[in-house]
Amino acid sequence: MRKVVIYDTTLRDGAQTRGISYSVHDKVLIAKKLDGLGIDFIEGGWPGSNPKDLEFFKQIRKVRFKKAKLVAFGSTHRKHKSAGQDPILKTLATCGLKFVTIFGKSWDLHVKDVLKVSLDENIKMISDTIKYLKSKKLTVFYDAEHFFDGYRHNPSYALRTLVTAQDSGAAVIVLCDTNGGMLTSQITKIINEVKPHLKAELGIHVHNDSGMAIANSLAAVEAGCSHFQGTINGYGERCGNADLCAVMACLKLKLGINCISEAKLKDLVEVSRYVSEVSNMKQQDNQPFVGSSAFSHKAGIHINAMVKNPKTYEHINPESVGNKRRFLASELSGKTSILFKARELSYDLGKDDKNTKKLHKLIQRLEHEGYQFEAAEASFELLIKRALKKYKKFFVLEGFRVEVEKRQDNQLISEATIKLRVNKIKEHTASEGDGPVNALDNALRKALHDFYPELGEMHLSDFKVRVLDSKAGTAAKVRVFIESQDEKSSWWTVGVSENIIEASWQALVDSIEYKLLKEREKR
Amino acid sequence: MRKVVIYDTTLRDGAQTRGISYSVHDKVLIAKKLDGLGIDFIEGGWPGSNPKDLEFFKQIRKVRFKKAKLVAFGSTHRKHKSAGQDPILKTLATCGLKFVTIFGKSWDLHVKDVLKVSLDENIKMISDTIKYLKSKKLTVFYDAEHFFDGYRHNPSYALRTLVTAQDSGAAVIVLCDTNGGMLTSQITKIINEVKPHLKAELGIHVHNDSGMAIANSLAAVEAGCSHFQGTINGYGERCGNADLCAVMACLKLKLGINCISEAKLKDLVEVSRYVSEVSNMKQQDNQPFVGSSAFSHKAGIHINAMVKNPKTYEHINPESVGNKRRFLASELSGKTSILFKARELSYDLGKDDKNTKKLHKLIQRLEHEGYQFEAAEASFELLIKRALKKYKKFFVLEGFRVEVEKRQDNQLISEATIKLRVNKIKEHTASEGDGPVNALDNALRKALHDFYPELGEMHLSDFKVRVLDSKAGTAAKVRVFIESQDEKSSWWTVGVSENIIEASWQALVDSIEYKLLKEREKR
Repeated sequence: MRKVVIYDTTLRDGAQTRGISYSVHDKVLIAKKLDGLGIDFIEGGWPGSNPKDLEFFKQIRKVRFKKAKLVAFGSTHRKHKSAGQDPILKTLATCGLKFVTIFGKSWDLHVKDVLKVSLDENIKMISDTIKYLKSKKLTVFYDAEHFFDGYRHNPSYALRTLVTAQDSGAAVIVLCDTNGGMLTSQITKIINEVKPHLKAELGIHVHNDSGMAIANSLAAVEAGCSHFQGTINGYGERCGNADLCAVMACLKLKLGINCISEAKLKDLVEVSRYVSEVSNMKQQDNQPFVGSSAFSHKAGIHINAMVKNPKTYEHINPESVGNKRRFLASELSGKTSILFKARELSYDLGKDDKNTKKLHKLIQRLEHEGYQFEAAEASFELLIKRALKKYKKFFVLEGFRVEVEKRQDNQLISEATIKLRVNKIKEHTASEGDGPVNALDNALRKALHDFYPELGEMHLSDFKVRVLDSKAGTAAKVRVFIESQDEKSSWWTVGVSENIIEASWQALVDSIEYKLLKEREKR
Repeated sequence: MRKVVIYDTTLRDGAQTRGISYSVHDKVLIAKKLDGLGIDFIEGGWPGSNPKDLEFFKQIRKVRFKKAKLVAFGSTHRKHKSAGQDPILKTLATCGLKFVTIFGKSWDLHVKDVLKVSLDENIKMISDTIKYLKSKKLTVFYDAEHFFDGYRHNPSYALRTLVTAQDSGAAVIVLCDTNGGMLTSQITKIINEVKPHLKAELGIHVHNDSGMAIANSLAAVEAGCSHFQGTINGYGERCGNADLCAVMACLKLKLGINCISEAKLKDLVEVSRYVSEVSNMKQQDNQPFVGSSAFSHKAGIHINAMVKNPKTYEHINPESVGNKRRFLASELSGKTSILFKARELSYDLGKDDKNTKKLHKLIQRLEHEGYQFEAAEASFELLIKRALKKYKKFFVLEGFRVEVEKRQDNQLISEATIKLRVNKIKEHTASEGDGPVNALDNALRKALHDFYPELGEMHLSDFKVRVLDSKAGTAAKVRVFIESQDEKSSWWTVGVSENIIEASWQALVDSIEYKLLKEREKR
């Protein structure tokens, strides 16, 4: 079985996406997730170009990867210097990694207009840089930037840069469509022309400016490339890079190429969503393979056919990539997950029980309103328990008020007052905070403290806000996720409202009730 | 010069998008816009399948198109009946149109499992349907549904359905990849195989389930198809159809094929945005050719090269499709983008000016605090103008107070009061809203309305919240982005604070000041 090596550049090229700004911590989280998916190489950044990337490489050394190898990125050395004099190349050689990717110029226009050196000097820069890094025992991948554009303008020079990189010891020659302007037919034709002149392994790295990055990557593999570079969800500068999710799924399912195991392929949807969350980019509903609409059927005529045979309007089985089929107009989905969860909680529900139907309707209504329980299992558990009347409330809210005041001296004050009852005992208290939600959180904990001291063991560990139907501007609905944790575990809860205070309140209350219930059940 | 006919199915296939629900009025607006762009054929809907489409065809007859021809959609006649007995075909024959598209089955699996008729009866249904419509003086386009899947499973039968349609009088045989599962190489190979067997004009209609719809459409044209079906922005069921914007741009600019005039091509961005507005779908920032990030440069090394020669990182001139180049302000890009932006605003700043250094430091500090200007260009402009003291404030805030109250009956009230001065005139007012930010937004507009009636022209069109350092729980910093728009343009602003009300306030104020400044500069 043919093999293609998967090389992820989400943390370097993907970070060029407008709107993405990774912290070092974000990058560590994503790198771990990519390793979990079974990616071969992870390009972590360009140490020396900015301090954040250097800090990332320092921190990531503490992480033990299962499979992935970490790669640093850099360019050929500065002009009119030697490779050994280049401080960034020195950093690459000494940062403790075994793999490095170097990009160099293949397009004469770039050599003349950007580098402003002679064509021969560029050849020498490529050669010296690779030889220097090889002498430091590094494996060098060579990114031939703008190769396809260069080849179309000056084929013999572009090819000469590749042969130079190969003869200087590069392990892989990666052909780049940096500007994303190539048609698929051009990719195929050019690779067929250059392949006979090279012995080295060939790679492909393309951008999506013509909307063909996925197709062009596949065509390159069909033409003989055995190393593929892309990013999760196709993140990248301008129109992005090739979407690694779609390319891996196509390689595996359509070309039968070994690049990911069947079991790992089922994690694709989860990895795509996770990276989109960390990147704070909404996952595209219609993203091929992994989007929430990728297997959503709306036309009645399609749904009728799908019931007869799912192959009629699906190019692959959605489960093979961890996605699921959705019939948008129908009420067929969802019951299975309710029964599954109820069984986990040791409630024996049948498919046609009155309670199952009631719960199913309730969940459908809530999801329609914007709730999402996939990422908030604690709220989902509470929902089931409430519907089955398996617990009584720990407190009754009589009301709260949250106030934010800004004075002329720019001072900000956030204060919350809360009135509630535990059994028959009233509590009325107030607290300030760093913002309205924090003030409300503080006031609620203060009010409950004497009744439930165990709440002192838990704290909120994450807080996310997503604006739904964002076209409604400041009147839009928001969904709030809150993660809470104590010594033993962590749990997510959700709230939805046009009012961010109310949405946060719902998620706060769930997080507290979940904790109290957990403690009761232990006894 | 070779010609390709452009056939738009936004109003029929595009309407299958999850989240799109066109009114008759929406459809009329879009049809007019498509005609303005110079589209050859507009598929308006499936009269007979639903009353809305029939109503559309009634209303659209009052509109005089410059160039476009309207097409109705339908299927082969019902089984065990004759074409003349089929009520939907009768509707097609009598609704006053001259063009009709009929889809029929090419895949034996569909004939057996969905239609549940014999292979021969399906052939007869295709033939009878086309002959019946031809007898009514209609031009018939034949959509060979699932042709590529069918051909891969049973090539001789799939080909037989095409020959039948051709011999029955279809003007164009449209090859469909209905499930969107084909690789580009398969499209090319299959068209090359079937072309010698057909005399009729060939068309292409593909879906995007593998992310290759644009590439596959182009490959089909290169293999000989001269009729292309797609939708604006690639709308359509599941992962959508081929994006007509990208395909037209590629045909014109990359293959030199006559399908749209140079002048009309410049309307592409505007048409894409208009249709996304009417469809209530956010236009994708990274959409090839027409997205707002399609020519946005973020990496410092790219920006430096672009200043030397714009061909270095652009596959086409953005103006040719009505788009524009953007240099994003980010920690990755540095001083160059400040100078570029200042020049756009007609301020002449040198690289080593005192003001440039001051601005650079200010931006670095703000980005460190969590501001992000690459996606908030309006705030970036205001920042430069403020730093260069190029405008005076439009109002002075004396204070605001925002209150959210929840009562025992679960009723929620959000109210904001605001006190400000315009010149020396004080204004003190209050407003309710759907949440605290909406209440504040309403109160601010109310307070400013008499002084700046032009604010009535703008509205907020998008609202995003991102929690930074989310591990701080409810005390975390939040970053708010607001998009505003008026008739002419749209602009993004940003605010950051631990307090979501304050962060929203900053972005709100910027959005309003940007609008007022824009109006002053016009004068």
